[in-house]
Amino acid sequence: MSEVKDRLAALREEMRKYHVDIYIVPSSDCHESEYVSVHFRAREYITGFTGSAGTAVVTMEEAGLWTDGRYFLQAEAQLKGSGIRLYRMGEPGVPPLEEYVESQLGQGKCLGFDGRVMAASKALEFDRMVRKHGASLMEREDLIDRIWPDRPAIPDTQVFLLEECYSGESVDGKLERVRRAMEEQQVDIHVLASLCDIAWLLNLRGGDIPCVPVTLSFLTLTQEDCVWYVRPSVVTEEIRTYLAKRRVRIKEYDEIYRDLEGLSVDTRVLLDRRNVNDRLLRSLPESADIIDRPNPTELMKAVKNETEIRNIREAHRKESIAFTRFLYRLKTGAADLTELSAAEYLDARRAEQEHCLGQSFAPICAYGPHGAVVHYSATEETNVPILRESFLLVDAGGHYLEGTTDTTRTIAMEPLKMEQKRMYTAVLRANLRLAYAKFLKGATGYSLDVLCREPLWQLGVDFKHGTGHGVGYLLNVHEGPNAFRPRIPEEETPVELQPGMVTTDEPGVYIAGEYGIRLENELLCVEGPLGAYGQFLEFEILTLIPFDRDAILPEEMNQEELQWLNAYHRRVYEAVGPYLPEEEREWLRECTEIIR
Amino acid sequence: MSEVKDRLAALREEMRKYHVDIYIVPSSDCHESEYVSVHFRAREYITGFTGSAGTAVVTMEEAGLWTDGRYFLQAEAQLKGSGIRLYRMGEPGVPPLEEYVESQLGQGKCLGFDGRVMAASKALEFDRMVRKHGASLMEREDLIDRIWPDRPAIPDTQVFLLEECYSGESVDGKLERVRRAMEEQQVDIHVLASLCDIAWLLNLRGGDIPCVPVTLSFLTLTQEDCVWYVRPSVVTEEIRTYLAKRRVRIKEYDEIYRDLEGLSVDTRVLLDRRNVNDRLLRSLPESADIIDRPNPTELMKAVKNETEIRNIREAHRKESIAFTRFLYRLKTGAADLTELSAAEYLDARRAEQEHCLGQSFAPICAYGPHGAVVHYSATEETNVPILRESFLLVDAGGHYLEGTTDTTRTIAMEPLKMEQKRMYTAVLRANLRLAYAKFLKGATGYSLDVLCREPLWQLGVDFKHGTGHGVGYLLNVHEGPNAFRPRIPEEETPVELQPGMVTTDEPGVYIAGEYGIRLENELLCVEGPLGAYGQFLEFEILTLIPFDRDAILPEEMNQEELQWLNAYHRRVYEAVGPYLPEEEREWLRECTEIIR
Repeated sequence: MSEVKDRLAALREEMRKYHVDIYIVPSSDCHESEYVSVHFRAREYITGFTGSAGTAVVTMEEAGLWTDGRYFLQAEAQLKGSGIRLYRMGEPGVPPLEEYVESQLGQGKCLGFDGRVMAASKALEFDRMVRKHGASLMEREDLIDRIWPDRPAIPDTQVFLLEECYSGESVDGKLERVRRAMEEQQVDIHVLASLCDIAWLLNLRGGDIPCVPVTLSFLTLTQEDCVWYVRPSVVTEEIRTYLAKRRVRIKEYDEIYRDLEGLSVDTRVLLDRRNVNDRLLRSLPESADIIDRPNPTELMKAVKNETEIRNIREAHRKESIAFTRFLYRLKTGAADLTELSAAEYLDARRAEQEHCLGQSFAPICAYGPHGAVVHYSATEETNVPILRESFLLVDAGGHYLEGTTDTTRTIAMEPLKMEQKRMYTAVLRANLRLAYAKFLKGATGYSLDVLCREPLWQLGVDFKHGTGHGVGYLLNVHEGPNAFRPRIPEEETPVELQPGMVTTDEPGVYIAGEYGIRLENELLCVEGPLGAYGQFLEFEILTLIPFDRDAILPEEMNQEELQWLNAYHRRVYEAVGPYLPEEEREWLRECTEIIR
Repeated sequence: MSEVKDRLAALREEMRKYHVDIYIVPSSDCHESEYVSVHFRAREYITGFTGSAGTAVVTMEEAGLWTDGRYFLQAEAQLKGSGIRLYRMGEPGVPPLEEYVESQLGQGKCLGFDGRVMAASKALEFDRMVRKHGASLMEREDLIDRIWPDRPAIPDTQVFLLEECYSGESVDGKLERVRRAMEEQQVDIHVLASLCDIAWLLNLRGGDIPCVPVTLSFLTLTQEDCVWYVRPSVVTEEIRTYLAKRRVRIKEYDEIYRDLEGLSVDTRVLLDRRNVNDRLLRSLPESADIIDRPNPTELMKAVKNETEIRNIREAHRKESIAFTRFLYRLKTGAADLTELSAAEYLDARRAEQEHCLGQSFAPICAYGPHGAVVHYSATEETNVPILRESFLLVDAGGHYLEGTTDTTRTIAMEPLKMEQKRMYTAVLRANLRLAYAKFLKGATGYSLDVLCREPLWQLGVDFKHGTGHGVGYLLNVHEGPNAFRPRIPEEETPVELQPGMVTTDEPGVYIAGEYGIRLENELLCVEGPLGAYGQFLEFEILTLIPFDRDAILPEEMNQEELQWLNAYHRRVYEAVGPYLPEEEREWLRECTEIIR
C-alpha cells in the first residue's frame, strides 16, 4: 500500500505543477469502454483497486474512490491502508461523486482530468459546475501518464473478419441501415467511438482489450463516406481490400481529432455524449449542431438476427456441455481442487469446444465467503481449496464464433445448512419467475425486474446489482440497451423488450463473510401468441445447465415453479446429454430427474 | 342522435363566424378537474358521449372523439349514428389527437378552443404546432357556450369546514409546509388551480362537483399573503372568520386573471402546467419566470397523516359493513333486483352508516355483458334484471367524514361456467399478488405493476386500464401522484411509494358481450422491516369485504396465495362480523371459512 501512497504523492506533485486542485481519474479508455486494455488502467494504478467500475478523485488533502455495490467488499479490502476513502455509491448518506467534486470547487480552483478518457456527457456536467463556482478546467493533460514510468503498451493484435455465416448481415446492409437512420434524423455526419458498435458495423473483431474482441478505433459516417480511424499495425492487407470494396476508408487512429476540427460550421453531428469522449466533442466546431442520441447501431446490434440466434443457440450448447462436465467433476470428486484449478478445469473443457475464442470475462470461481464478494476474482493470494461444505459460486462465459455466453451456477459442496438451502431455493424461484414470464409487447426490462426480486423480498433479502444485462455477439459480454433493472437511470429512456434481444437473468443472495448464491441464465426474447390483447412476448432460456438439486427445497416451491424447473431440466438433458461420456450422461440424467 | 348532428351544425356555424377551422372540446372545467360540474360538460353536449374522459375535435368536414380503453364499448354505443368517429387511444394504427390536429393544420388555418378549459401544458403543444405550420390560434371564445341555450348553472352549495379531528393537520401547518417548499424552490408566488389541492390546504370542502366535495376556486400564495378566489355566495360568515384568522384573504373567483396580469415582471411563479388552465398562464406577465413543477400539495395530501389513516380505517369498516350486507342480499335472494335497484340497496346500506356524505362516484352495477363495459353506468334504458347466472360486477364507493372509499366486487350469480371461474381465480390471484407484495423503499407503482398483471398474462389476457390509483380523503376518489401503472407517461417522474399512501389494486378481465370481472381493494402503504438491505415496505389492505368463494378454483391457486386469501377472510370476519345482524353474520362466517 505504500506503493499507492507514493503514486498519490507523485500525482499531487504533478497537480501542483499544473495548478490543479482536484483531479479525477475515471476507469475508462478513449472509447468509454467498460473493460479496458491494461494501458488504460490509470484508476487502478492510482488506487490499487482492480474492479472494472470506479472513479478516483484526488485533492491535495484527500483521495476517494466511488464504486458500486458489486465491489464494496473488494474495494474495502484493496483500499485498506492506502488512505483512500471508499464512497459506497447508492448507500444512504454517501455523497455522489459530482456532489463531492462540487463541494471542493470555489473561486479560482482548478478541476482537472484527461478529456480523452472522460465521457462528453460527464465532462459537460463538470464544465457547468466549474463555471457556476468561478473555477477553471484543465482537461488537456494526462497527469497519470507523467507518473507511470512502466505504463504498459497497447498490443498490436491483428483484426479479423467475422464471416456473414456468423454475423448474418453484410457490412453494406448495416451501413445502409445506419445511413437511413441518419437521414431520418437529418444529420450530416455520425461520430462513433464505441468499440463494439464499430466492430458490429464493420463485421470485424480484434484483440486490444482482454476478453472483449475489439480493436481501438473511431469511425465517422456520412451518406457518401465512411472513415475508420485505426492503428495501421492491426489491419492486414486482406482487411484493407475487404473494406475498400465496401468504400470504407482507413486513416490513422489519432487523425479523427483533426478531421472533426475541420468540419464545416453548422454541420449536424449525430453522437451519443455518453459514448464519446470529451476531447472529441471539443474538437468539433463550436457552431456544430449536436444531435445527442443513442447510436443507431446500439439497438440494431442488440436485436440479434436469425443467423445470430441460430449461432447463439449453438454457442450455448457448447458452453453448456463444458459447464456440465465441470459440474460433474466438482460434484463427484473435488477434493483436490482449488478456486484457481477449478476455473482452469472449466477453461480446459471450454477450449475443447470447436470455434472457442476464450473467456468472455475473467471468471469468478468463489468458494464459501468469497461468493459474497459479488465480483470476486481469485488470485494466488486469495486462492482457497474447495472443501466438501457450503457453496461454490462460478460465474463464467466464453467467446465462440457463434456468440458469447455468460452463466452462473452455485454448487452445493454439501453438507449445506437449512438456511442455505432456503436461500438457494428462493434465488432459483426468482430466476424461474422471470424466465417463464409472459408479457405484453411494450414491457421493458424495468417493468419486469420486480418479478425476479419479489420472491427474495418476501424473505427480506435483496441483491445490490442489476437483475440482468444484454449480451453481445462475440463482443462485450455486457451490452445495452436492454437490461433488467429496478430503476430507470435519470435521462434514460428505457427500450421495449423485442424479439431477438438476449438478456441475462441473474438474481443472487450474498451473506458477507459466509457465502454467496447467484443463478444466471441467458434469456432470448421471442414472440408468444398474438391475440385480442395484443402481441405477447416470452423468453427462451439459452443456457442449458442443470441447477443443483442438492440445494433445492421442493416444499418451498409451488407447483408452477416445479413444473418450470422440471421442464427446464428435461431440456438440459436432451440438449447436453448426447454429447457427454456415458458416466457423465448417467450423472446428468439423475441431476435432471423430475422433482416433486 | 339527430340532436348531436344539429349541435355539430350549430358549432360549425359559430366556427365559420370566428374563422376557426378546427375546434377542440376537452372534458375539463377551468381547474383541470377529472369530474366536472354539469355546467362544464361541453364535450358531452357536443358528442353525446357521457364518459368522464375524452376529447372532441370538430372540423368543417369531420368530427372525432378520442377516449381510452375503459370507454371503448360505451363510446361506440353512444356515438352510433352521430357521424362522430371514435379514436381508440393506444390501439395500433390510431393517430393520437395531437397528430390528427396537426394533420389538419396548414398555412392560414385557425385552431380554436376555450383557453379556460384547456390545460396550459396542452395549449403549449398546440401553440408550437400552430406556429410551425403558419396557422393561428383562437383561445378566447367558448363556442359551445354560444350554441348551448339551456346550459346548466353552477349550484351555490355552501362550503364547510373539515375539523382537525378529521384532517389531522391545521391550515397554518399546511401553509407553512407549502411556503417552506416555495422557499426551497426560490419562488415568489405559487398559483393553485386544482380544486382538491386547495380544499386540502384550507381544510374546506364544498359541493360544486357531483361526488367530489370541492368548491370552484383558485388560490395564490406568497410568503406573506394567501388569496382564495371563490364565489362569495358559497362562503358562510363562519368560514370567513375562520380564514381571516389564518390570514387567508377572499376575492371574487374571476379576479385571479386580473391579479396575475398585475404581477411585477420577473416574478418567479411556481405552477404545474398540467393543472393550470391556459388562460391563467396567458394572464401572467410575459417576462415572468415560470417554474413548472408539481404542486407541493400534491405529494403532501397523498401521504396521509396518522389521524387520516386512523379515520380511513374507520371509513373502510363502515363501507365494508354496508357492502357485505349488500352481498348478503344478492347472494341469498336477488330474484327481484335489477342493476339500478341493487345499486340503490347498496346506497341505502351506506347511508345508514354514521358520517356518510354519499357516493364517491357514480356506482357501476353491471350485470352479465354489461360488466365488460369498464365504466358502465346503468340507466333506465340499459337497466336489466339480475338473473341467477353469470357475474354481477359492482364498483362503488362512499364519502365519509373519515375518508373516501372505492371497492369492486364481482359476484357469482351461479351457475358459472368453468372458464368464468378460471378467470375469476386469475383476477383474484392478480389482486393478492400485489396486495401481499413486499418491496424495498424506492419502488414505484410502475415497478410493481407487473406483479398484478403477470398471473393474467400467463393466461394470455390483460386489462386495458391502470392497476390502481391514489384515493383522496373526502376529495376526488382518483388522486395522484401515486398509482399502479404499466408504463410511465412521458415527462412524468414517478414517485416512490411511501408509507401513508393509499392506492387501489383493481385487476380485471373483460370479455366483450359476455361478462366482466374486477376485484378492487384499497392498499395502505406501511413500513415493513428495516434490515441490512434497507427499509422494506408493504401494504395493509383497507377494504374488508369477502371475495366470492363460489367463483374460486382453489386448485388453481398455490399455497402462498391460499394462505393470503384465508388470512384476509379472517380479517374480514373479525372486522365486519360483529356489526352484522345474526343471520348475516352467520352467512359471513361461512363465506370466510378456510379454503384449501
